[in-house]
Amino acid sequence: MFKIDFSNIATQHPMDQLKNESLDALEKLLNKSCEGSEFTGWVDLPENYDREEFDRIKKAAEKIRKNSECLVVIGIGGSYMGAKAVDYAMSDYFSSEKEIEIIYAGYQLSSTYMAQLLKYLEDKDFSVNVISKSGTTTEPAICFRFIKELMDKKYSPEEQKDRIFVTTDKEKGALKELSNSNGFESFIVPDDVGGRFSVLTAVGLLPLAVKGINIDDLMLGASEARNDLTKKDYEDNLALQYASFRNYMYRNGKDIEILVNYEMRLKYFAEWFKQLFAESEGKDNKGIFPISCNFTTDLHSVGQMIQDGQKNVFETVISIENPQEDLVVKEEKENLDNLNYLAGKSVDYVNKMAMKGTITAHVSGNVDNILITIDEINEKTLGYMIYFFEISVAVSALILGVNPFNQPGVEEYKKQMFRLLEKPGY
Amino acid sequence: MFKIDFSNIATQHPMDQLKNESLDALEKLLNKSCEGSEFTGWVDLPENYDREEFDRIKKAAEKIRKNSECLVVIGIGGSYMGAKAVDYAMSDYFSSEKEIEIIYAGYQLSSTYMAQLLKYLEDKDFSVNVISKSGTTTEPAICFRFIKELMDKKYSPEEQKDRIFVTTDKEKGALKELSNSNGFESFIVPDDVGGRFSVLTAVGLLPLAVKGINIDDLMLGASEARNDLTKKDYEDNLALQYASFRNYMYRNGKDIEILVNYEMRLKYFAEWFKQLFAESEGKDNKGIFPISCNFTTDLHSVGQMIQDGQKNVFETVISIENPQEDLVVKEEKENLDNLNYLAGKSVDYVNKMAMKGTITAHVSGNVDNILITIDEINEKTLGYMIYFFEISVAVSALILGVNPFNQPGVEEYKKQMFRLLEKPGY
Repeated sequence: MFKIDFSNIATQHPMDQLKNESLDALEKLLNKSCEGSEFTGWVDLPENYDREEFDRIKKAAEKIRKNSECLVVIGIGGSYMGAKAVDYAMSDYFSSEKEIEIIYAGYQLSSTYMAQLLKYLEDKDFSVNVISKSGTTTEPAICFRFIKELMDKKYSPEEQKDRIFVTTDKEKGALKELSNSNGFESFIVPDDVGGRFSVLTAVGLLPLAVKGINIDDLMLGASEARNDLTKKDYEDNLALQYASFRNYMYRNGKDIEILVNYEMRLKYFAEWFKQLFAESEGKDNKGIFPISCNFTTDLHSVGQMIQDGQKNVFETVISIENPQEDLVVKEEKENLDNLNYLAGKSVDYVNKMAMKGTITAHVSGNVDNILITIDEINEKTLGYMIYFFEISVAVSALILGVNPFNQPGVEEYKKQMFRLLEKPGY
Repeated sequence: MFKIDFSNIATQHPMDQLKNESLDALEKLLNKSCEGSEFTGWVDLPENYDREEFDRIKKAAEKIRKNSECLVVIGIGGSYMGAKAVDYAMSDYFSSEKEIEIIYAGYQLSSTYMAQLLKYLEDKDFSVNVISKSGTTTEPAICFRFIKELMDKKYSPEEQKDRIFVTTDKEKGALKELSNSNGFESFIVPDDVGGRFSVLTAVGLLPLAVKGINIDDLMLGASEARNDLTKKDYEDNLALQYASFRNYMYRNGKDIEILVNYEMRLKYFAEWFKQLFAESEGKDNKGIFPISCNFTTDLHSVGQMIQDGQKNVFETVISIENPQEDLVVKEEKENLDNLNYLAGKSVDYVNKMAMKGTITAHVSGNVDNILITIDEINEKTLGYMIYFFEISVAVSALILGVNPFNQPGVEEYKKQMFRLLEKPGY
């Protein structure tokens, strides 16, 4: 279901010199003796998640699917990126109107987006899932004010109880108060799970269940990953190997990691990955800068730079064994385009050869490549990959020597913004 | 209409030491004595473009808008990124069904995308613009075979003449032959304009005219930029200053440039920028790696890494003075979210303060920032920005000491792919 090929590393071996460091990091993560260990609730989540809440999520999702054309998910950062990653990966490329539409909002401050969203929703039946631990984060809070105002115009307080769902702190904060006083159903952002590790809590699960995604299978995939990747056995634990590989790259001057896909459905999975890795590792003047590419698209863009530019890049490629759909190139009489040599071959086969050829080309240009293969895009493989990257980044950041679970730098822009906005206290 | 603030540079001044190098580069570009000068046709394009073809583009666009619900634009790299950049920048965030839909295809090898596109088009009236200089580039050629097959089912040869538009070499190649023998109208990819510089030729203009974009204004904006930015006067030429700035950054160890926007409508403009800069500069083991961020979204993602990570990053921020739409935050009795301090302020004002605060925060974290401001997103400012970045990258690459107009590394993956696909001759 999930494998990694580490054989295309151009930099001198062995990365196994980091074996003991990775085992040590895993040990500290699991016995909660690492820095930031108060935020490691996600480690056991695939096993010990709250079954009662899980059922409530499914019931709420059913209700929303019945009474709404759209669900507006209001959240920023970890409060929406996980859901969007899985949602997009599981969606068709061309939307059908029969499906419920999930609209993400409150994740930036574009006034145009906000105004156009309000117009779009005017004639639609919609529900809202507002997601924020504190309930006071600027972007989602502003967005929710506008959406709530529209709801007040469209729906009675009683109707709103069937349409507003809150995911927030279990007992305190603005949204918890709001849900208490208005009777909105609420779900929990656990105290020991940071935003970027929260996709397998109600934060990610409610929007995904509304989308029609099998969240049982998602948890099952994550649970399989937990079994595989908490083993204290380097040779048998791909997360330890990946974390070691990354740090080996970093110590060899490779400070940009590109998460590469050959299937754009993984585009927002890459965004989730970028947040997970950048926020976990980018501190104390350290860290590998995570970026992403869609190939073969970007082979006609940054591809030139990867092949012939500075040698400060390595690639982590995700390949999907079986595409959702495929079709075969046919023979053509005229053959003006010289493609007849491909007749009888499938488009996915050509895509795979593009991938293999690119790996060879990049490695020959001193760009190290590792290749992750999943059998197909489904809830199980996505759940597995989510857990894989979570455990990998924790181990990787600990090897790097930083706290994987804080994000002190995110406060800086907020402080400066609040000062300019003359927020009381700043 | 277009200005740059260079005052937030954290790295020690002066970047003006590159003044003479930039003037020298511009001189060589304009008198066609630089490397790759056979591909500098784009420099004078805003003045000397083919008026007869321009009119044909408008007429073809009118025809397509009348007979089609969708236009499928088939092209990869420079053959679609410019059109997509401007198209997306000029689009509303939520699509209305009244508008003609522009669908980009043939820019990757996802079999799922191809199959789902064919299904989607089955019941639609559509036209095609296939864009490729040679007509044999793998991705668009495969796509066009499938689209043509669907067209053969839906439309007679006579009808296809009103629905298939070819943008290709003026006299040779697969697509030119096809258009000659079938009577498809064809437009020209000029010999002296490389793919990534081709948005202001028929390559970009036809899809954009179909979208309803005012291509006269687009050319006008570019023409204004040409007047401003071909001046051999460093103090008065922002392109020279920007090119100098970038190289100054590079020489000071800043090898990642982030193009930042605070309005997601510029998301694909950033993709165009990335291609332009990566392909032009990424060679001979040199080059600044161009990436992009949507803020404030990514302040909750890679923002942590920018603030506190390695100091190898600088930012080029694009700010839009006047948003397309805006709305004002209202006072709320309960004020659970503590947002009442923003009452009476507009969402765009908050967005601007987020931008200003972020620049201050990042500069204090040793991340150099420059700030480009345009008055609004429209055809003129987009045309101006396109030309600005084109002339800037040419000057910048020449200062760096590489040929700005070739892309030898892009062939590497193709060679390896063709070998694996057993293409005759490989």
